[in-house]
Amino acid sequence: RYGYFGRTTPEVVRLMFCKISGCLTETRITLSTSGEEMVSVNTKDLTGIRMLQKEEVEVVLLTSSEDSLAQVLSDKLGKKTDCQVIQVGEEPLNDLTPIVEQKKLDWKDVAYMGNDKADVNCLNRARLSAVPGDAAVVAINATKYTCHSVGGMGAVREFTDYILLQKQKAKSKLQQDRIDCNN
Amino acid sequence: RYGYFGRTTPEVVRLMFCKISGCLTETRITLSTSGEEMVSVNTKDLTGIRMLQKEEVEVVLLTSSEDSLAQVLSDKLGKKTDCQVIQVGEEPLNDLTPIVEQKKLDWKDVAYMGNDKADVNCLNRARLSAVPGDAAVVAINATKYTCHSVGGMGAVREFTDYILLQKQKAKSKLQQDRIDCNN
Amino acid sequence: RYGYFGRTTPEVVRLMFCKISGCLTETRITLSTSGEEMVSVNTKDLTGIRMLQKEEVEVVLLTSSEDSLAQVLSDKLGKKTDCQVIQVGEEPLNDLTPIVEQKKLDWKDVAYMGNDKADVNCLNRARLSAVPGDAAVVAINATKYTCHSVGGMGAVREFTDYILLQKQKAKSKLQQDRIDCNN
Amino acid sequence: RYGYFGRTTPEVVRLMFCKISGCLTETRITLSTSGEEMVSVNTKDLTGIRMLQKEEVEVVLLTSSEDSLAQVLSDKLGKKTDCQVIQVGEEPLNDLTPIVEQKKLDWKDVAYMGNDKADVNCLNRARLSAVPGDAAVVAINATKYTCHSVGGMGAVREFTDYILLQKQKAKSKLQQDRIDCNN
Repeated sequence: RYGYFGRTTPEVVRLMFCKISGCLTETRITLSTSGEEMVSVNTKDLTGIRMLQKEEVEVVLLTSSEDSLAQVLSDKLGKKTDCQVIQVGEEPLNDLTPIVEQKKLDWKDVAYMGNDKADVNCLNRARLSAVPGDAAVVAINATKYTCHSVGGMGAVREFTDYILLQKQKAKSKLQQDRIDCNN
Repeated sequence: RYGYFGRTTPEVVRLMFCKISGCLTETRITLSTSGEEMVSVNTKDLTGIRMLQKEEVEVVLLTSSEDSLAQVLSDKLGKKTDCQVIQVGEEPLNDLTPIVEQKKLDWKDVAYMGNDKADVNCLNRARLSAVPGDAAVVAINATKYTCHSVGGMGAVREFTDYILLQKQKAKSKLQQDRIDCNN
Repeated sequence: RYGYFGRTTPEVVRLMFCKISGCLTETRITLSTSGEEMVSVNTKDLTGIRMLQKEEVEVVLLTSSEDSLAQVLSDKLGKKTDCQVIQVGEEPLNDLTPIVEQKKLDWKDVAYMGNDKADVNCLNRARLSAVPGDAAVVAINATKYTCHSVGGMGAVREFTDYILLQKQKAKSKLQQDRIDCNN
Repeated sequence: RYGYFGRTTPEVVRLMFCKISGCLTETRITLSTSGEEMVSVNTKDLTGIRMLQKEEVEVVLLTSSEDSLAQVLSDKLGKKTDCQVIQVGEEPLNDLTPIVEQKKLDWKDVAYMGNDKADVNCLNRARLSAVPGDAAVVAINATKYTCHSVGGMGAVREFTDYILLQKQKAKSKLQQDRIDCNN
């Protein structure tokens, strides 16, 4: 896809979809007597998303109508990370394919992180895919990479570090190929 | 109990009782200076309850007057899971048997999840029973299944997955028996 | 101390002192942007205290002016457990000995749970003593029993179960001695 | 630096810089539906800072504009520990060197605790340095001491205990040298 004389930088992926509930957040929800709901995220993961954005990979967060997580918390996380938040249905692939195409990209440009049965098709289609260490077995079986960290405790960072490493490797290879080409 | 030519679907269980405190929630309670109390639940467990309800197993949540958990939190959890919440006394068996009979069911149609001494008789009577991995020893000794997960961290999901598996097995066996019968 | 023909029930201990911060609560304190502070306790520990109170062992909770825990949270815990809360200074032994004597008891009637250097002398003096598994080394060295559980996660329950077991053993031995005596 | 006949007490370090986010606090941030943010600290770490202050080591807390932690929480922690809070930029060494000099000290008088890439140069320059057990690999490689505890769960205490031990050792050696000198 990336010819030596074509685009100058190999992109590996240019878009990352990441489920909020169970990937960016812990699966634990805290309820208070006054009616509040709370979820926890990890600064390591937020830093990972920022690192990816600096490398010009767009990160889009996903919520689902099936989520037990309050919508207001998803919106907050979108703002905190400067990411667009998209609500997907029972088959996220159907909702996301038009978005991928609208951005003039292909699923081969996409990294996907999910954690349960609904994510299986997207995990299969994306170029790079990952699930947190505490994901459902069916999702673990479908993914290319299973994180050691669990959701909300560094799994997203593990995946973003992996993506950055792949980008760096591709860049190094490109430079090496150019040197070989010129000699 | 399920004749080949009788009911078409083996039910295994049609009603699940689940203690809130220590099973659906963590045993940890958080207190704030302003007087609030907080407990944590797990989205995995909430999903497990929904999966059971879709398979037409009714789930009833139990609180006890001995619980350290504020009543308002139990009510919230009932709403969040679309489950009825029943308050039981020192011997839940006495409170629950009339309910089982009123639903024209038998303890052989019931799955029970508890975590301490008060639950021993119910754990013994129910067709399927489970306790979280951090339950009191006396409850572990009385149950048929001890979860690997602790309360509020996936124990309920482990039990609901187990129940669904039993239902599926019974269904497969029924179909196999029918095939054998027809040949 | 307990003659066969004297008091009919061996008491083992009749008073338990328990530090709040780090024993009954986790060492973790949560701060919110609105200025609240939160600490977590465990329902298992609260149940353990109630079990001890039913066996007529008085439980007194201790706070220290050195504690990082807000006073209002200590008061709440006192109410939640129906325990008196006493503030102790740098050497709790000096504050508690008058209280022990005022109740016409002796340190041989006392169980003590603490978790740091300040507790060393009390741990040494009390008939039964324990520290949570995450206590300071100097406290672990001074105690008779180190819990497997950490503070706020079941350490108090472990100690109250241990005390109840000791009471039961002493009672059984008394009955056996009486039988032996009568034969 | 510490001649036998010069200053009477070896200081080892007289100033400690400690990053708030990820060192004094957990990397976990909790968000509530009403818009609050919460972070957790550990009473063990707070006690460690107080122990260091009693030995006349000044402790200065560091925040970064890159932190995901709300500023108001950093200020609270400064008050709770009686520490000055300084905001540093992308290269903390540039911000902190003037402060070290202003206090008529040298980086050889400084202990530094950080947890990520930005801290590498400071970790290298400080006389004593440490990172929590869950720090980024690049920080672990640059530090002299990696704590067993993770951030917000005792890592700061581990480092302050280590500093106090070094001070005590230096003091003992000084006394021994004096005895040798006098004999």
